[in-house]
Amino acid sequence: MIHASLDDSTGEILGFAMEQLLDAGALDVSFIPLYMKKNRPGVKLEVICNRSDEKKLLEIIFRETTTLGVRITEARRAVMTRELRKVHTPFGPVRVKRAHWQGVVKASPEYEDCRQAALRAGVSLQTVYQSALTRTDIEGEMTE
Amino acid sequence: MIHASLDDSTGEILGFAMEQLLDAGALDVSFIPLYMKKNRPGVKLEVICNRSDEKKLLEIIFRETTTLGVRITEARRAVMTRELRKVHTPFGPVRVKRAHWQGVVKASPEYEDCRQAALRAGVSLQTVYQSALTRTDIEGEMTE
Amino acid sequence: MIHASLDDSTGEILGFAMEQLLDAGALDVSFIPLYMKKNRPGVKLEVICNRSDEKKLLEIIFRETTTLGVRITEARRAVMTRELRKVHTPFGPVRVKRAHWQGVVKASPEYEDCRQAALRAGVSLQTVYQSALTRTDIEGEMTE
Amino acid sequence: MIHASLDDSTGEILGFAMEQLLDAGALDVSFIPLYMKKNRPGVKLEVICNRSDEKKLLEIIFRETTTLGVRITEARRAVMTRELRKVHTPFGPVRVKRAHWQGVVKASPEYEDCRQAALRAGVSLQTVYQSALTRTDIEGEMTE
Amino acid sequence: MIHASLDDSTGEILGFAMEQLLDAGALDVSFIPLYMKKNRPGVKLEVICNRSDEKKLLEIIFRETTTLGVRITEARRAVMTRELRKVHTPFGPVRVKRAHWQGVVKASPEYEDCRQAALRAGVSLQTVYQSALTRTDIEGEMTE
Amino acid sequence: MIHASLDDSTGEILGFAMEQLLDAGALDVSFIPLYMKKNRPGVKLEVICNRSDEKKLLEIIFRETTTLGVRITEARRAVMTRELRKVHTPFGPVRVKRAHWQGVVKASPEYEDCRQAALRAGVSLQTVYQSALTRTDIEGEMTE
Ligand code: NI
Ligand code: NI
Ligand code: NI
Ligand code: NI
Ligand code: NI
Ligand code: NI
Ligand code: NI
Ligand code: NI
Ligand code: NI
Ligand code: NI
Ligand code: NI
Ligand code: NI
Repeated sequence: MIHASLDDSTGEILGFAMEQLLDAGALDVSFIPLYMKKNRPGVKLEVICNRSDEKKLLEIIFRETTTLGVRITEARRAVMTRELRKVHTPFGPVRVKRAHWQGVVKASPEYEDCRQAALRAGVSLQTVYQSALTRTDIEGEMTE
Repeated sequence: MIHASLDDSTGEILGFAMEQLLDAGALDVSFIPLYMKKNRPGVKLEVICNRSDEKKLLEIIFRETTTLGVRITEARRAVMTRELRKVHTPFGPVRVKRAHWQGVVKASPEYEDCRQAALRAGVSLQTVYQSALTRTDIEGEMTE
Repeated sequence: MIHASLDDSTGEILGFAMEQLLDAGALDVSFIPLYMKKNRPGVKLEVICNRSDEKKLLEIIFRETTTLGVRITEARRAVMTRELRKVHTPFGPVRVKRAHWQGVVKASPEYEDCRQAALRAGVSLQTVYQSALTRTDIEGEMTE
Repeated sequence: MIHASLDDSTGEILGFAMEQLLDAGALDVSFIPLYMKKNRPGVKLEVICNRSDEKKLLEIIFRETTTLGVRITEARRAVMTRELRKVHTPFGPVRVKRAHWQGVVKASPEYEDCRQAALRAGVSLQTVYQSALTRTDIEGEMTE
Repeated sequence: MIHASLDDSTGEILGFAMEQLLDAGALDVSFIPLYMKKNRPGVKLEVICNRSDEKKLLEIIFRETTTLGVRITEARRAVMTRELRKVHTPFGPVRVKRAHWQGVVKASPEYEDCRQAALRAGVSLQTVYQSALTRTDIEGEMTE
Repeated sequence: MIHASLDDSTGEILGFAMEQLLDAGALDVSFIPLYMKKNRPGVKLEVICNRSDEKKLLEIIFRETTTLGVRITEARRAVMTRELRKVHTPFGPVRVKRAHWQGVVKASPEYEDCRQAALRAGVSLQTVYQSALTRTDIEGEMTE
């Protein structure tokens, strides 16, 4: 995880940096509001990435933002195993991610599939999301 | 109250703007973290002021920040009446603000007095603050 | 809506104030993180209430927090009409709020019902919530 | 300005709502982090719009989010007059917005022009932005 | 410390998760507002716990929230030693925690004791808190 | 990096603690808004420092804030090399920090120099900042 605290980059600059970092392979990019010295509202940039992408992402951070130094930390991870299945909703097909960890099983419809179905059908995102979940058999196999 | 939402001013610029606004008579200046479009972390600037200072403060906002337009709202106010008394602590004299509203009475030591006493005596701000409160007779008169 | 900006109340004090305000009839209470002068992280307290409860709530705000003055604003409201129906889930009965506004219809299960069902059945809140929604007929009548 | 406080919409739902609101003509959409009752992290949605778009935007808010009621407030506005000019940078042409209010004059390069020039030239957004500002004659006419 | 960044859990879900985590032995649970990709307001969940409770808490996080993976980090700790004493206030007995670290000594009244005394006596939490502190002998023994 | 999560220190106390920590050699101090249990808005204090200053800073944190325990983490760092040069603007001399990392080069004018020049000349901070950057030769030597 790469962290940088910024008090002299604008929101516009940071929005562009997020776009660049995601395009370059960052797994996740986020901003945390921060109160810095001299009454400055700042932002903490956090980038999660594979070790192999670190150098490429550092170059973007140093080029696009005003930071002069970043901190890099390692963490253990606990992850759920995932599998992707497709379900058929009245608004079109939607992939649903089913995840397991020990006894826990849960499902979450893919955002981009739901978004496109909602736009196409003129219904709310929530409606498509619910519709996909209703058609997902969490315990057994998914109904395709 | 003057409000502006900003996505292209830096924290440094905003810290300086706060300093300018307070020097020019703003009663209160604050920043609220804001999520704006295109993944931009932004800031909402809020300035509380007397009507007569509005033009002067707008000039600072337009000059120092990148905003192109602000919103101005009016509000009713409910305020406690206040009186300032001095109490003697082991760390030196501290003014205490005593406030009333209907049946409610409360007291708060002046920050700058406590800060200077703490720095002078090498004790924590909290210690001076407590010491001043202990010497404040909230219900009756303050013990001077 | 009653607003107060606070830089000298603690989180503990504010959590207690929220509890008191809700018990005294506030419709909604929320805190917004705020950056105030002299590098102080502060909090904006916002209370939504009926006009008739204003005096009682002001008394709590002035008594429990350190604020010396609040701002009160009025707003027009646009609200959805609501009706409450009960559905039967495998985890017990859950009331679902169905709301309308012009052509829009939507449903949301009652939090406290879902919470109790989840605790009783040892399943996740999300599972109960989904289960209740699946049994809700948004367009026509709810299936009881 | 339309406000809604939300504790039961997800970030995904809200990101989609912002997209819909901007497409439907909202002048500005922002999210403010909010602490709500029962330990719930929530979000205040704020939408700035022309009066004529209000009904259309309310429909999106009620359809896409979980809110059951919104507050609508009016505000006076103070705005700078603006004019758009084009400047030629080594990275291509960029439009610069020049703004006036009383004695205050300032300039800001258009984000989308800078973004495209930066991506095309492989330089940082900041580099294009600076380059455009350097070529902008704030006091007199812009150098075209 | 267990961390998860969430953009598809609601505030209601997260409030319930906090309750579950604290009941299951988490030492501390907090939420940090986060700006995630695609204009999503998100939340970082942070849980502090003993190593022995980790598995039980992970199960709650995976079951109740939408996260598919968490990060776990270790930290050195520096802690003050604490001792709990009781003081008698006009509002009833209150336990006060006295803490030491090297030369530093400080005291803080127990929140739940103060809360109950304030509710019983109909005074502000701050009043009870002050009253307990005034009766606490920080340097020597507490006055019982 | 030293971290502490606080729910019973006020903004005034924290602003004073930041001042003390910076005076005692902390490299950076920041506050992050945090949602803690029992509906408490809290603050995470983060202090970046050299290992040799750790004990001195811990003493300030324990003395000035209410925390009873902090967490200390280590991180790898990636830093740009920096050199400071002076440029002459119409508003007076300004030092500009030029930074390198691999192929990346960038420049940022010193805040305090710009601030004083802006106050002296009665122009905006942004104007001085731009003026200094325009006179900075990023690729080659700075024009003195
Ligand atoms: Ni700087
Ligand atoms: Ni499987
Ligand atoms: Ni812009
Ligand atoms: Ni009086
Ligand atoms: Ni104060
Ligand atoms: Ni109906
Ligand atoms: Ni709800
Ligand atoms: Ni003109
Ligand atoms: Ni998702
Ligand atoms: Ni002892
Ligand atoms: Ni406490
Ligand atoms: Ni060099």
